[in-house]
Amino acid sequence: MTDPIALAKALIACPSVTPATGAVFDVLAAALVAQGFAVERFVTGEAPDGPVENLLATRGDGGEHFAFAGHLDVVPPGEGWNGDAFAPEVKGGLLYGRGAVDMKSSIAAFVAAADGVTDKRITLIVTGDEEGPAIYGTAAIIERMQARGLIPDLCLVGEPTSTARLGDTIKIGRRGSVNMWIHVAGTQGHVAYPHLADNPIPRLIRILSQIEAVELDRGTDWFQPSNIEITTVDVGNPTTNVIPADASTRLSIRFNDRQSGPALVEHIGAIVASEPGATLDARISGEAFLTPPGAFSARIANAIVAETGITPELSTTGGTSDARFMSKLCPTVEFGLCNATMHKVDEAVALADIDTLVRIYRRILTADA
Amino acid sequence: MTDPIALAKALIACPSVTPATGAVFDVLAAALVAQGFAVERFVTGEAPDGPVENLLATRGDGGEHFAFAGHLDVVPPGEGWNGDAFAPEVKGGLLYGRGAVDMKSSIAAFVAAADGVTDKRITLIVTGDEEGPAIYGTAAIIERMQARGLIPDLCLVGEPTSTARLGDTIKIGRRGSVNMWIHVAGTQGHVAYPHLADNPIPRLIRILSQIEAVELDRGTDWFQPSNIEITTVDVGNPTTNVIPADASTRLSIRFNDRQSGPALVEHIGAIVASEPGATLDARISGEAFLTPPGAFSARIANAIVAETGITPELSTTGGTSDARFMSKLCPTVEFGLCNATMHKVDEAVALADIDTLVRIYRRILTADA
Ligand SMILES: [Zn+2]
Ligand SMILES: [Zn+2]
Repeated sequence: MTDPIALAKALIACPSVTPATGAVFDVLAAALVAQGFAVERFVTGEAPDGPVENLLATRGDGGEHFAFAGHLDVVPPGEGWNGDAFAPEVKGGLLYGRGAVDMKSSIAAFVAAADGVTDKRITLIVTGDEEGPAIYGTAAIIERMQARGLIPDLCLVGEPTSTARLGDTIKIGRRGSVNMWIHVAGTQGHVAYPHLADNPIPRLIRILSQIEAVELDRGTDWFQPSNIEITTVDVGNPTTNVIPADASTRLSIRFNDRQSGPALVEHIGAIVASEPGATLDARISGEAFLTPPGAFSARIANAIVAETGITPELSTTGGTSDARFMSKLCPTVEFGLCNATMHKVDEAVALADIDTLVRIYRRILTADA
Repeated sequence: MTDPIALAKALIACPSVTPATGAVFDVLAAALVAQGFAVERFVTGEAPDGPVENLLATRGDGGEHFAFAGHLDVVPPGEGWNGDAFAPEVKGGLLYGRGAVDMKSSIAAFVAAADGVTDKRITLIVTGDEEGPAIYGTAAIIERMQARGLIPDLCLVGEPTSTARLGDTIKIGRRGSVNMWIHVAGTQGHVAYPHLADNPIPRLIRILSQIEAVELDRGTDWFQPSNIEITTVDVGNPTTNVIPADASTRLSIRFNDRQSGPALVEHIGAIVASEPGATLDARISGEAFLTPPGAFSARIANAIVAETGITPELSTTGGTSDARFMSKLCPTVEFGLCNATMHKVDEAVALADIDTLVRIYRRILTADA
């Protein structure tokens, strides 16, 4: 049977800062092949957002089709680790290493949980680019699955959703995200002769005042209110007596399922269009998704209660995740390890949590659909 | 008799980018000593705004005390001259060289005009730093004059005030100038968790909206309205999903004699104080000054009409000049050459204008007080 801790260590031992390639996929593929999975690896995309290495593994062809999604890439370790971020080390019951919680141990736990579950079809969707642009990552795997009619009934995403204790939180949705860039063009000049110049800053301020006054919504039963954040304003004029020719700003909007990316671009675009010389560029990172509480989230909650005694909170907070792609195919819920050390120095997971997670994942997999 | 064109050439031949020192003062001092002026040269100030070389020359001790103020420093030549900016050259009736109009030829014209005028006291106030910080320039000469009780009755500043034709404009005042820096401090965070952060940008926008709504005044008979220009806004946050910790902006206010620097600092300071975490720094470059139309401006206008047939416009436009210091001592008016090429490549003055300017300056000097 697959040893989840040994597999987690072997995955952590492969440095795989985004985009992950090669060795770390070799380790996972070997574990899956040993369990009888058909493993397919492919590379998609070109610079600057690619190429990206992906893995699609499937086993079984009857019964429920259950998918698990995750990523093998990790964020850079940063400075200040007590040990080597890519030399997994167990100390005081904790396994240290970059990716320990986000999310190599979770992948290892799922592989261990799947061992011997033969009464259903199980598919693993694993990308090497979740922490990066994610253009050619999970989205590309989904495209390939759709092209083949390989549509799961349910998908569990193994992101570290737990906060204080393993099992306290699962995510049934995520907000969408769109970044916008606003540029206002003017005419440079001397402050002593403002009538000969055209300062773009007052127009930018009027635009930003209007944007600040926008209330997109007040939230829903499952989501907090959609939020517009002005993340920078830049003119960069070093000269005290010069009126600048250009001014720009950037917005980051996190939105719930009452909104959509294109509608937000239109809304902000209309405000921008109210001032001459102002233009808008936008990049929608992901739409909001929600898997309304129901059979799937109950199945996961029941498994968590059975193994830990904890009733998980159904949350929709946090940034975007690849669950936004999966949710286009089937009901998708995220559940994984405690996220306290994710993306931080000395990232670590309790060995006991890996064992418990294997049991929870197995209960979820083997529960009656 | 002093040849104004030869003296202008000799002054231009001394490269004297701000701060001017040495040779260019030697040339002027020699011409003044030859006419019987008592010439005093002194160096004031320390880095970063000094040291600065200055010249104070005076002759005669009875009758009216008439002062002329100017500067021997020039702005850097910049790229693209047809000849050498510091090799004076006459072509097609024009004398080319950096400082030809701003304002070495004007100084030369005044020295020539003063030649033989013995029925009054004449003082020349010439600094090597007018185009720079001007902290230790004319202000320092004025201090020295005040300490000695050497207070002129009238002061003519030889800045190039003419625009299309010599004599079309004299300046009877200048607006004041103050720069202000506003900083708003916040708390950095992730856009997905805005409640854990404190974005300074909305507060900065509210401050700037209030400032944009300020109408300081509607101008006076002699001044255009005071003007607040926002010259930059800077956050400089490169990361789309980060809420920044700091935001800042800079204002340039040009104001008429209805305002004062300290009152403006207080006015804007009250707006800034309405938002938490916001602070204001200010630097007053100069107060507004006005020599209301009267005997002195009429004397200058009459001299111009007599020599050119043109009735000059009495203007208060443009940036600050050293006349703001002189005006603390006595009625001060600015009049000089055409400013079309000042601070530009191929700066040039018509030889005929130098001759006419000598005659105008002499008429001003010798008119009945
Ligand atoms: Zn992750
Ligand atoms: Zn000048």
